[in-house]
Amino acid sequence: KRCSVTRFHFLPLIIFLVGLHAVEGIWPLPQTMTSSAERYSLDPQYFNFNYGRDSATQQGCSVLDAAFKRYFSIIFPDHISGSVFAERAALNAETVWGALRGNSNNLCSMFMNKGITFFVNKTEIEDFPRFQFRGVLLDTSRHYLPVQVILKTLDAMSYSKFNVFHWHIVDDPSFPYQSRTFPGLSSKGAFHPMTHIYTQSDVRRVISYARLRGIRVLPEFDSPGHTQSWGKGQSDLLTPCYKGGIPSGTFGPVNPASASSYQFMARLFKEVSAVFPESYIHLGGDEVDVSCWKSNPDVQVFMQKMGFGNDFAKLESYYMENLVNITSALNKTSIVWQDVFEYHERVSTPQQMIVVWREGCYLCEVRRVTKAGLKVILASPWYLDLPGPTHDWVRYYTVWPLAFKGTEEQKKLVIGGEVCMWGEYVDATNLSPRLWPRASAAAERLWSDEKQTSSVARAFSRLQDFRCKLLRRGIQAEPLFVGHCRHEYQGV
Amino acid sequence: KRCSVTRFHFLPLIIFLVGLHAVEGIWPLPQTMTSSAERYSLDPQYFNFNYGRDSATQQGCSVLDAAFKRYFSIIFPDHISGSVFAERAALNAETVWGALRGNSNNLCSMFMNKGITFFVNKTEIEDFPRFQFRGVLLDTSRHYLPVQVILKTLDAMSYSKFNVFHWHIVDDPSFPYQSRTFPGLSSKGAFHPMTHIYTQSDVRRVISYARLRGIRVLPEFDSPGHTQSWGKGQSDLLTPCYKGGIPSGTFGPVNPASASSYQFMARLFKEVSAVFPESYIHLGGDEVDVSCWKSNPDVQVFMQKMGFGNDFAKLESYYMENLVNITSALNKTSIVWQDVFEYHERVSTPQQMIVVWREGCYLCEVRRVTKAGLKVILASPWYLDLPGPTHDWVRYYTVWPLAFKGTEEQKKLVIGGEVCMWGEYVDATNLSPRLWPRASAAAERLWSDEKQTSSVARAFSRLQDFRCKLLRRGIQAEPLFVGHCRHEYQGV
Repeated sequence: KRCSVTRFHFLPLIIFLVGLHAVEGIWPLPQTMTSSAERYSLDPQYFNFNYGRDSATQQGCSVLDAAFKRYFSIIFPDHISGSVFAERAALNAETVWGALRGNSNNLCSMFMNKGITFFVNKTEIEDFPRFQFRGVLLDTSRHYLPVQVILKTLDAMSYSKFNVFHWHIVDDPSFPYQSRTFPGLSSKGAFHPMTHIYTQSDVRRVISYARLRGIRVLPEFDSPGHTQSWGKGQSDLLTPCYKGGIPSGTFGPVNPASASSYQFMARLFKEVSAVFPESYIHLGGDEVDVSCWKSNPDVQVFMQKMGFGNDFAKLESYYMENLVNITSALNKTSIVWQDVFEYHERVSTPQQMIVVWREGCYLCEVRRVTKAGLKVILASPWYLDLPGPTHDWVRYYTVWPLAFKGTEEQKKLVIGGEVCMWGEYVDATNLSPRLWPRASAAAERLWSDEKQTSSVARAFSRLQDFRCKLLRRGIQAEPLFVGHCRHEYQGV
Repeated sequence: KRCSVTRFHFLPLIIFLVGLHAVEGIWPLPQTMTSSAERYSLDPQYFNFNYGRDSATQQGCSVLDAAFKRYFSIIFPDHISGSVFAERAALNAETVWGALRGNSNNLCSMFMNKGITFFVNKTEIEDFPRFQFRGVLLDTSRHYLPVQVILKTLDAMSYSKFNVFHWHIVDDPSFPYQSRTFPGLSSKGAFHPMTHIYTQSDVRRVISYARLRGIRVLPEFDSPGHTQSWGKGQSDLLTPCYKGGIPSGTFGPVNPASASSYQFMARLFKEVSAVFPESYIHLGGDEVDVSCWKSNPDVQVFMQKMGFGNDFAKLESYYMENLVNITSALNKTSIVWQDVFEYHERVSTPQQMIVVWREGCYLCEVRRVTKAGLKVILASPWYLDLPGPTHDWVRYYTVWPLAFKGTEEQKKLVIGGEVCMWGEYVDATNLSPRLWPRASAAAERLWSDEKQTSSVARAFSRLQDFRCKLLRRGIQAEPLFVGHCRHEYQGV
């Protein structure tokens, strides 16, 4: 495959092309864009995507070959691909992924049809993302999401230039990941062992679909807390809780005092590391309730043996350190929730990323983490699973991730942010309208220049227009306010 | 058609039959239900609906014939109708509509299949609704809703035993009703004159679909306010606003000073009365902004001529009185928003119904209206268009419509309630999950005995179960909390 690929790089790209109502049509806003009155008409029959003669990437690059097909049908619905293209538009990108994103929205959004003719104005765009990590978290444990729903979400993500699918794949309520090494985890821990699981081939399909859209799949196997469902298929994994000196029959977090826990984790993560090509892995580490650990005599003995005294934060750190080592040995860099940083700043290596998710003064936390020299992903202001009126998009838009006191070095450590769609009240019935277009507001904050996109009033009509584009592309995006889209009910 | 039909009657009905997990399966809760351990197995091949030998209604009653077909496929998905039924179950109802509702939920919810066999326990049910008016308002002006979406909503309504579709068909933003008499209203006032309208045949289809499900279609043509879209197709209808002694170019409510306004309304409502068979009509009358009236010299002259002084409430009353008279002459009883009662208690005849919709102490208003001897429909606590977490269903469930100080006569005047789904932030993309199952919480409050349904904790699992039934019947109902339904993703 003739693609030159680099990852987690800034993607400067320049597009010389043509766009009618250019600004209305483009979300997120490109870094610079100049449009002239010079106008060209386009004939779908003679329109085609071609690789530049001097391009390092040529036909046979599956990512771009596939993208060209998708983009053609987005630009010209109801037409089949044409053949010849007079060289009027050019897109230069440093990487394949840059080309992908340059096409995806900027280019596709510019062509407008009036009746049966397509027009474009001469336009020049230079574009690159403000932050390199622009994620969407889906929670497939609290409710199972069918693979089709995940794929649809990946489509929608690419339209807003998101580039990371943070797959919170398992948690307390269910374990839908079908492991080759430990098939009991899903056969006993999923809501249903046949219908509510992700098979190996499902996972491969999600990864490959995401890749073609320039989206990395970051798996999260959250532990030691949030693991109730793991215990169903792996009987000696969780800590037995005690009450009045005897086992109460309930279980707590993963047992950190047992060597078998780490052996299990090593085998599980060996498999996970092979299944998910992503070089990062999310280890969770949030919201560990230590009361069960406290009650368990084996854990108490272990605490004494390790010299932890009564400091359970040390036990948590010990556990996470082991997991970080296990995954480093598999050449994965770990990402963890902010809790891990809080109970143990030392565990973190400079490569490690901390996801700031708690409410309150989240920028205070961003400041602390970056002061410690660690990278930050910001999630706190973007918990979209909580329903709200659609004009809430303003809340997600007016987020200023770098508005904390800190050095330039600190600011550079803020590598991006992510929208979280937790699953307590969300499943396939309401995921799409709850995500879109509100997530797109966060997407522009993460992609575009802050100064150019500080006005909510100016963004509103552009976002409304973009929401109509999402509808036209088959994404069930909520309305922002009274009105209608020209194409909203085609095919209903 | 051999149906005996009465309307707005209480519908006592008795079902002797059979239900496994009966209580879980039934929402809203029947008035009385006793279930025994005696169990029957059912074979779809030999299952059939038949009219009782002594029934006044017999085959040929289109409402029940059609219902039997629908119910069969709900009870036995993937089976075709059987032929013979040993007389084990009987449903007695005073009216066709009672039979409809007795079947719709009670009966259909009881049959449960385990594997390929269907079982039922012997059960006796006596049932009737607590309130006779159980409505859902859809707003098709702020966003257009395709006819298919309305029909789907009618399906879902019938499953929760709602019996009134309050069609808020036109308003300021658009006028989608295609009038025979005044085609300009929609051709100029709809979002789009071809794709965003309800033709006469669309309206007939909605009415007939609703009737087969025991649902009345109550049209609302709100005036004199909320009529901006009317002005586009009817140039002399609205009041020209003045600024500094000259027309400002903007328009206010319908012009109450002009005889032509009433002539227009008489012709429009003549048509509407013929198109909608419902004996009630909703005239709106809410939120009239009188500032434009105040500015207009013709209105000022009219005020003096009529001796209204500066009391614009008198002008509003005069206008509404005219509309009430116009529609009474067409044999329609009018329903209005509480505003009309507030500015003019006198306009109301004892037949008239007042919809209480404002926030705050809505029961105070219910008390006042019933004290004046008028009928009340309660809407205030059920504004479901405002999004909220799904556990909000508790808010809609713990509403006590009769918890005000008043005589027994006053309580009887509370004839029901309605769920309002206004359209500012709602269209086909999010209507269904926003309505269901939250609207079902209100439905049980309006149907079931209050004492038997006062516990939120006891209702929760039954509502969860009912939500799964809605999914299985193709209604995109939101999840109430973590978990899954057995049949949730069939066909995804």
